[in-house]
Amino acid sequence: MPKKVIYIAGLGLIGSSLALAIKRGQPDYEILAYNRSQESRDIALKEGMVHAVTDDFAAFAPLADVIILALPIQQTLDFLEVLSQLELKDKVLITDAGSTKAQIVAEAEACLQDRPVRFVGGHPMAGSHKSGAIAADVTLFENAYYIFSPSSLTQPGTIEEMKEVLVGLKARFIELEAGEHDLVTSQISHFPHILASSLMEQAGHYRKDHPMTQHFAAGGFRDMTRIAESEPGMWTSILLTNRAAILERMEDFKNRLDQVAQLLQRGDEEAIWQFFNHGRELRKAMEIHKRAGVDSFYDIFINVPDEEDAILGILELLRGTSIVNIRINEENREDINGILQITFKNREDLEKSAKIVRENTKYQVFLD
Amino acid sequence: MPKKVIYIAGLGLIGSSLALAIKRGQPDYEILAYNRSQESRDIALKEGMVHAVTDDFAAFAPLADVIILALPIQQTLDFLEVLSQLELKDKVLITDAGSTKAQIVAEAEACLQDRPVRFVGGHPMAGSHKSGAIAADVTLFENAYYIFSPSSLTQPGTIEEMKEVLVGLKARFIELEAGEHDLVTSQISHFPHILASSLMEQAGHYRKDHPMTQHFAAGGFRDMTRIAESEPGMWTSILLTNRAAILERMEDFKNRLDQVAQLLQRGDEEAIWQFFNHGRELRKAMEIHKRAGVDSFYDIFINVPDEEDAILGILELLRGTSIVNIRINEENREDINGILQITFKNREDLEKSAKIVRENTKYQVFLD
Repeated sequence: MPKKVIYIAGLGLIGSSLALAIKRGQPDYEILAYNRSQESRDIALKEGMVHAVTDDFAAFAPLADVIILALPIQQTLDFLEVLSQLELKDKVLITDAGSTKAQIVAEAEACLQDRPVRFVGGHPMAGSHKSGAIAADVTLFENAYYIFSPSSLTQPGTIEEMKEVLVGLKARFIELEAGEHDLVTSQISHFPHILASSLMEQAGHYRKDHPMTQHFAAGGFRDMTRIAESEPGMWTSILLTNRAAILERMEDFKNRLDQVAQLLQRGDEEAIWQFFNHGRELRKAMEIHKRAGVDSFYDIFINVPDEEDAILGILELLRGTSIVNIRINEENREDINGILQITFKNREDLEKSAKIVRENTKYQVFLD
Repeated sequence: MPKKVIYIAGLGLIGSSLALAIKRGQPDYEILAYNRSQESRDIALKEGMVHAVTDDFAAFAPLADVIILALPIQQTLDFLEVLSQLELKDKVLITDAGSTKAQIVAEAEACLQDRPVRFVGGHPMAGSHKSGAIAADVTLFENAYYIFSPSSLTQPGTIEEMKEVLVGLKARFIELEAGEHDLVTSQISHFPHILASSLMEQAGHYRKDHPMTQHFAAGGFRDMTRIAESEPGMWTSILLTNRAAILERMEDFKNRLDQVAQLLQRGDEEAIWQFFNHGRELRKAMEIHKRAGVDSFYDIFINVPDEEDAILGILELLRGTSIVNIRINEENREDINGILQITFKNREDLEKSAKIVRENTKYQVFLD
């Protein structure tokens, strides 16, 4: 296929990982990159992630067959405006990597409608606790969902062409209308972040009058507030570009809390039990219990002592078995010590491993 | 010290683990147990956890120096009434293991005030995903908080005597007034359970009109709804016996959501950023980041390939290093594959381990 020039704007975790993954799938492509700060530019160049870098976004844009805006949402909106002023290659393919889609797609349609360009919104659903080109990871998108949101500037074949450019990501490509994308993510990502931060704020305030709040926070509270530690800037711009959907979820949630409060006020034991049981059934049924290529979780729980190399000893017994996940102290209502949970890919590995651990250790072994 | 007769009512996870741990600390004590179902009675007897068992609660009560009610909350309330009708040893020490304290302490005071008995409420803050005597674990309470809530029937020395009985638990004993216990736990445990189940319910309902909700639920949503899988019966009785405190937290939380909604409605970027940033600072400051005997988390993040024995290989490199925790795919905003997080007890182990992994593997290594 024809060699292409790919221009990646932004060498953060996403942009630099895109560079590595595109190169893996399309080694002949020429990859150019823009980044504001010098550090990530130098790393990308030194590590051979890209062929050339610039701190002047406009400089490389006219050279590109594909322009990928891997930038914060507000900057993505600004750069779409900049692109509308530049002389670009005919039929240049422009996309982005923002966490919200409706506003970006609308802005692209408004800025670029009269230009001979193509645009499709993009959202690679992958992230990390680290950032910058230093964290670049060619495997970042493997088995992750990569959402394409078409625009009026998306032509037949546009998305297929993007998939070809991004084939090295080994991602799960999905097409989803921008508005629907923002509704779904408001429910499973954006609003839950507000919940987590609000719960953390509430507990932080409560602690002033009830100091033991600080000490008793256990596994459940830890789980529920974990994402409150996310980077505030990104989430601020996500909220601001998906307001209506998030506000609707907040209002709906308040009504749900009111319903539970009413059950509690009138002490409706049966209805409260049904509430908890329904939530339990729903979660058990959700894809939460699935992983890429894994139909469901097969978990073994091993009561390990707090000793050096206890985990190592178990993994040595299970050598050659593929492990999906391993953790201690999760999945529990309250803090407990030393429950090692190992997740296998299938029932056979689970049962074989349980047998091995039982026969070779004195540890308690539970299956789920 | 004088040999004591301990009577444990209920051989669930808590009761049977209490039996093992009391025996570990006070091997001379005689331990009697009540359980309704035969299965756990047989296991406790066969495994030598207890000296004798009964399915008639009243039968052994008169023999006991210490009576521990390790039962569901409602049954605990009922058995306090039963105890008030029995001829017990003079100064018998009665306690419980319920997850809420005010109602149980009040019931004990009401039932037993005219009897020559002593009562102190108890709450061992430990749990597991498993139940019954089959799951009995002598280490279950190690380093866990064990709360004593005094009553009008708690005399000088009563709590000290309980600590002596329970010395084998190696728990962190704390004294906390019953009402305060219920306030603190409403914030860090009871209300968060309502949040988790409500979020799960909301997403389950949303999914009907927005099917991708099912597929995009990622790490953050998983974390926030994990406890929605807890056993409904226990949480129903917890809610019903801590209504006022939980209802107050729910009302307070709705007000917090309203405040965030107002910021969002008027697009107050600075205030939204402050909201997220404050929650982030609060969580980082909370004891969440501490474990028993561990001042703080020392985490290494290793980008491991999805290969058999990849984790084993790393632990072999780190042989002899004490590992506090190990997990994959946690602490991330969205699903990513293969970030192995290992938590060490101190900075030295962390840096030594990072050096070893960097020198002996090609994996990316991040420190936090």
